[in-house]
Amino acid sequence: MSDYVRIVEVGPRDGLQNEKQSVSTGDKIELINRLSATGLRSIEATSFVSPKWIPQLADAAEVYAGIQRRPGIHYPVLVPNEQGYDRARAVGVEEVAVFTAASEAFNRTNTNAGIDESLARFEPILRRAAADGVRVRGYVSTVLGCPYQGEVPLADVVRVARALHQMGCYEISLGDTIGVGTPRKARAMLQAVAAEIPMEALAVHFHDTYGQAIANIATCLEAGVRVVDSAVSGAGGCPYAKGASGNVASEDVVYLLQGLGLDSGVDLPALAETGRWLAGLLGRATASRTGQALAAAG
Amino acid sequence: MSDYVRIVEVGPRDGLQNEKQSVSTGDKIELINRLSATGLRSIEATSFVSPKWIPQLADAAEVYAGIQRRPGIHYPVLVPNEQGYDRARAVGVEEVAVFTAASEAFNRTNTNAGIDESLARFEPILRRAAADGVRVRGYVSTVLGCPYQGEVPLADVVRVARALHQMGCYEISLGDTIGVGTPRKARAMLQAVAAEIPMEALAVHFHDTYGQAIANIATCLEAGVRVVDSAVSGAGGCPYAKGASGNVASEDVVYLLQGLGLDSGVDLPALAETGRWLAGLLGRATASRTGQALAAAG
Repeated sequence: MSDYVRIVEVGPRDGLQNEKQSVSTGDKIELINRLSATGLRSIEATSFVSPKWIPQLADAAEVYAGIQRRPGIHYPVLVPNEQGYDRARAVGVEEVAVFTAASEAFNRTNTNAGIDESLARFEPILRRAAADGVRVRGYVSTVLGCPYQGEVPLADVVRVARALHQMGCYEISLGDTIGVGTPRKARAMLQAVAAEIPMEALAVHFHDTYGQAIANIATCLEAGVRVVDSAVSGAGGCPYAKGASGNVASEDVVYLLQGLGLDSGVDLPALAETGRWLAGLLGRATASRTGQALAAAG
Repeated sequence: MSDYVRIVEVGPRDGLQNEKQSVSTGDKIELINRLSATGLRSIEATSFVSPKWIPQLADAAEVYAGIQRRPGIHYPVLVPNEQGYDRARAVGVEEVAVFTAASEAFNRTNTNAGIDESLARFEPILRRAAADGVRVRGYVSTVLGCPYQGEVPLADVVRVARALHQMGCYEISLGDTIGVGTPRKARAMLQAVAAEIPMEALAVHFHDTYGQAIANIATCLEAGVRVVDSAVSGAGGCPYAKGASGNVASEDVVYLLQGLGLDSGVDLPALAETGRWLAGLLGRATASRTGQALAAAG
């Protein structure tokens, strides 16, 4: 197994879309530019969803056009449909991400469509992306539990992940988006998917709602995963539990990796400083424990 | 391996002694009485250190005399020396805890004595406790790092733990008291000690300074430990990093145990409610992510 772990920084998108405090377009651009200077190789920049759904992300095109894109860094953006794909391509996006839940109930409640229908909607995007030379990442959410149906069968997680992979997604991010998982369940889920899709094509995405994210990541790293999603400053909350913690903090993930002798290429003090700067914009203390500790020590 | 995990709740002592906000004697008593109703079997009640050292704990005798001691629950107290032991026994204490660091530099800086001298000071306490039928727990701190000397050799951790065990401590709590550890190092440390002392006589004690405590606990549970120290509401801070996180939150540990199919006998909603009540006294939000999530879920 490789010692390199790629962090996919999702703070500018998954983080900010779930923060109450809005952030100006200029600050979003500065956030991404700061993150680009920390050694991160993948930074999810924004989402081309309809502004009617998520007003915080209405400036997606401006943000993408405004950032300084560095060679060797990927800046994926979320696209929910072909219109989103069109808008993204119009400003030169080279990598997109599509998303669906592993929970049938979640899909039906949030998109008024079952899983199979969601997957069918992605087919034209995947076809066009292949023709355009655009890389596509696939997110599977609610992999360890759903706010509507509770338990999510592992077979559903495997089926959705396999479908996205077969449709051409180069990487599948397995998301415990409500943060209910614990290590044994996380490992069992990862291993079930890895039995069908090469581990090299898998990523894990944990929210820290119950304080278990770092433990889940540690277990999945031990099981062989080498791509981890996280958000600087632990940005974002949980739409299903107001006041609860959001994404696992990138700073805490980098600290973990250093302790495990794994290499993310990320400059931890620079990342923590960016996290505290972002927390300042959001009007609160950083939600990263490592960020707090480094600030206290410094 | 047993499925029962005993939580040693250290909030009333290790937690409160590191909080800036002082808590009244009556509230300390209420805290312990509330905790006694949650299913916890070990609650560290206070510390009989000199009030000159830790003014927050000057009311140790009043607190201990004031709590409602329930059958089947142990209420250990910290004693730094024979005077402390005398004061504790005067109010009927039946279990005490002694403490030393695995780091020579830490011992010398904090107690003006080397490790061997510290251990020698405990001998009369252990002798008297044996004669009095008093149980003694031993704490070893700085087991994964020291604020003064940095790295702490594993051999020193093993030597100090073995000495306390040989002197008669029924249980040795291995403490990463500055919260710098990560899972592999935590497991290696536990296994090195367990090679010399039965795992049944070991406990782990993690602070969440860098957000790694739950991951470290998960790994140590997998390695066989069945006693975990934690503090309700994540009470306490880090005296070496002002503003940093304190003890791992008991609520987050109970959530982890439930997810792993282990049994602590603790009523999680009742514990989380006590944690939020304590946070209110301390004038801040609970530091437990599980406590936040349960509050949010209502």
